[in-house]
Amino acid sequence: KSPIMTFVLSLDAMGGDSAPHIVIEGAVKVLAEGAPFTFLVFGDAQKVSPLISNYPQYQSAFKLIHTDQAITNDMKVVAAIRSLPASSMRLAIDAVAKGEAVAVVSAGNTGAYMALSKLLLKTFQGVDRPALATSIPTLTGQSLVMDFGANVECTPENLVQFAIMGHVFGQRILKKKNPSIGLLNVGTEDVKGNAVVQEAAQTLRTLPQLNYYGFVEGDDVTAGTTDIVVTDGFTGNVALKTIEGTAKLIQKMLEDSLRQSWRGKLGYLIAKPAFRLLKKRMDPRLYNGALFLGLKGIAVKSHGGMDAVGFANAIRVAASLAADAASGQIAADLENFLTQHKVNP
Amino acid sequence: KSPIMTFVLSLDAMGGDSAPHIVIEGAVKVLAEGAPFTFLVFGDAQKVSPLISNYPQYQSAFKLIHTDQAITNDMKVVAAIRSLPASSMRLAIDAVAKGEAVAVVSAGNTGAYMALSKLLLKTFQGVDRPALATSIPTLTGQSLVMDFGANVECTPENLVQFAIMGHVFGQRILKKKNPSIGLLNVGTEDVKGNAVVQEAAQTLRTLPQLNYYGFVEGDDVTAGTTDIVVTDGFTGNVALKTIEGTAKLIQKMLEDSLRQSWRGKLGYLIAKPAFRLLKKRMDPRLYNGALFLGLKGIAVKSHGGMDAVGFANAIRVAASLAADAASGQIAADLENFLTQHKVNP
Repeated sequence: KSPIMTFVLSLDAMGGDSAPHIVIEGAVKVLAEGAPFTFLVFGDAQKVSPLISNYPQYQSAFKLIHTDQAITNDMKVVAAIRSLPASSMRLAIDAVAKGEAVAVVSAGNTGAYMALSKLLLKTFQGVDRPALATSIPTLTGQSLVMDFGANVECTPENLVQFAIMGHVFGQRILKKKNPSIGLLNVGTEDVKGNAVVQEAAQTLRTLPQLNYYGFVEGDDVTAGTTDIVVTDGFTGNVALKTIEGTAKLIQKMLEDSLRQSWRGKLGYLIAKPAFRLLKKRMDPRLYNGALFLGLKGIAVKSHGGMDAVGFANAIRVAASLAADAASGQIAADLENFLTQHKVNP
Repeated sequence: KSPIMTFVLSLDAMGGDSAPHIVIEGAVKVLAEGAPFTFLVFGDAQKVSPLISNYPQYQSAFKLIHTDQAITNDMKVVAAIRSLPASSMRLAIDAVAKGEAVAVVSAGNTGAYMALSKLLLKTFQGVDRPALATSIPTLTGQSLVMDFGANVECTPENLVQFAIMGHVFGQRILKKKNPSIGLLNVGTEDVKGNAVVQEAAQTLRTLPQLNYYGFVEGDDVTAGTTDIVVTDGFTGNVALKTIEGTAKLIQKMLEDSLRQSWRGKLGYLIAKPAFRLLKKRMDPRLYNGALFLGLKGIAVKSHGGMDAVGFANAIRVAASLAADAASGQIAADLENFLTQHKVNP
């Protein structure tokens, strides 16, 4: 592979509520920063081509591959895969499988993305199901939360594998030698929770290679109690969207409180740059870009409701992972761990 | 019953991280507001008696009943119930069952509280498991979220019953004629989610008496998309604690942003009353006091980590429900609904 090949990224132009325009405009934002990327863009040429034409200066950075098949959000996964053999999402993932791109980004149907990525990119040995991981801001820095909604039903073994993947990837992504791992539960006492977390905890306690902290609760997620928070996709998705919703609520409460007095209004005017800084730090678009861990290829999921700024961030997440020269090491670490310790039945 | 009887409240003095002192001090806070309550206090006399002695002016409002048995947070539910026939929690609930008090408040072990309440107070006909409901602030006012952690594993039938209880109680608590009901999920599309929410949704769509909205997501909870949010106790507990944690995170981000410039610092000083107002509106202690819906008696759960201010609020929640003359109507409405429409198999 020539070095330039490492910067070809594959984009599913038809995924997400505002596709394809957020996809092209997100890519343009990254190109405008001077990033030396080439994009393979999969989608409906009639819709995508005019969007690319809006940016003649970046024309050469895009290679458009036409397909009129697209997976929508309300499609069942199995139907989406069987009936659409040339969906934009599938072709975009396949480009990574074939070595034509180093990473794929899609804002489309999470379930279909997960299933197709698994099918085409394959998982590392010992990984039953990839985990969708995302980083969030915390009181102490940032944490990695997984699963974010790709696996709505999880077995204890799935959760244990997520923890191991979190350990291996967390070392790279969070730059921590031995990231601490918490298992999300309704209480911290050993007896708390359902059968799945109980069983997963029992196994995790027997793996001295992991820095397993124990159970954590909902408020520990943003407290940064552990570097990594492991949970099933149902709970993880609800928790992360709840963070988003709460941020909006508090922003409104703050505005209301300031508006209720002349002192509030004046203080706001004076401190305006600080409020702008806060808004920027809280911007969910800056945390957009969740990563499928456990695949033999880089696949990043953008939130379906994101705009171009958010999609651009998902592209950056994909690129930064692709640029990590140690990704081969991650693979080796993960396979060693999973096969040596035989967590997987 | 004499009218004065309606204001006897039963307190489990030994439940919660900082029991018994938060319990007595919480009760004193309510008494100091002039509330005409009498408290039956169940707990270790050696520990509780000196606390009551601190407030000679309220001495007559407390009736202390000694027991040296107390359920701790790390006890398994079955063990706690079998081995402690005279636990402070059990005796406190039993006072309501016997008609000696109109409501009970405990900050103790949620699982044990749920099981003992069900055992002693009984559920309404058609209710398999009570739901723990709590009200939260939203963009549009307040919503009722259930279950908050009492039922970590739920069947579709449980969720449907929660929705019906939410409908009946929501009318009273939220003062809405036909409160809208959302089912918490990882997406709003019909195909999203696990088997439990899928099945529950199918039944809810067939009940025209309910104002069933459909699936809602994590960010809808604080958006106030629906008046009532129905979910299993695992997800509900994580979501509500995540709201709490996120509030803390944003408060810190706000402080940090203001501290980073002289304009921020000055603006903060000027707008200080507004920030105080915000802090008060965000105070989780003001939302403390979750209610077991579906029981033939009023049982309120205080968060285990609350201080006296929070515990006092849980007492207020219990008292306001007890004072609702229509509680007989709630019971009738609920039993009618559940038996007429035969939701319960």
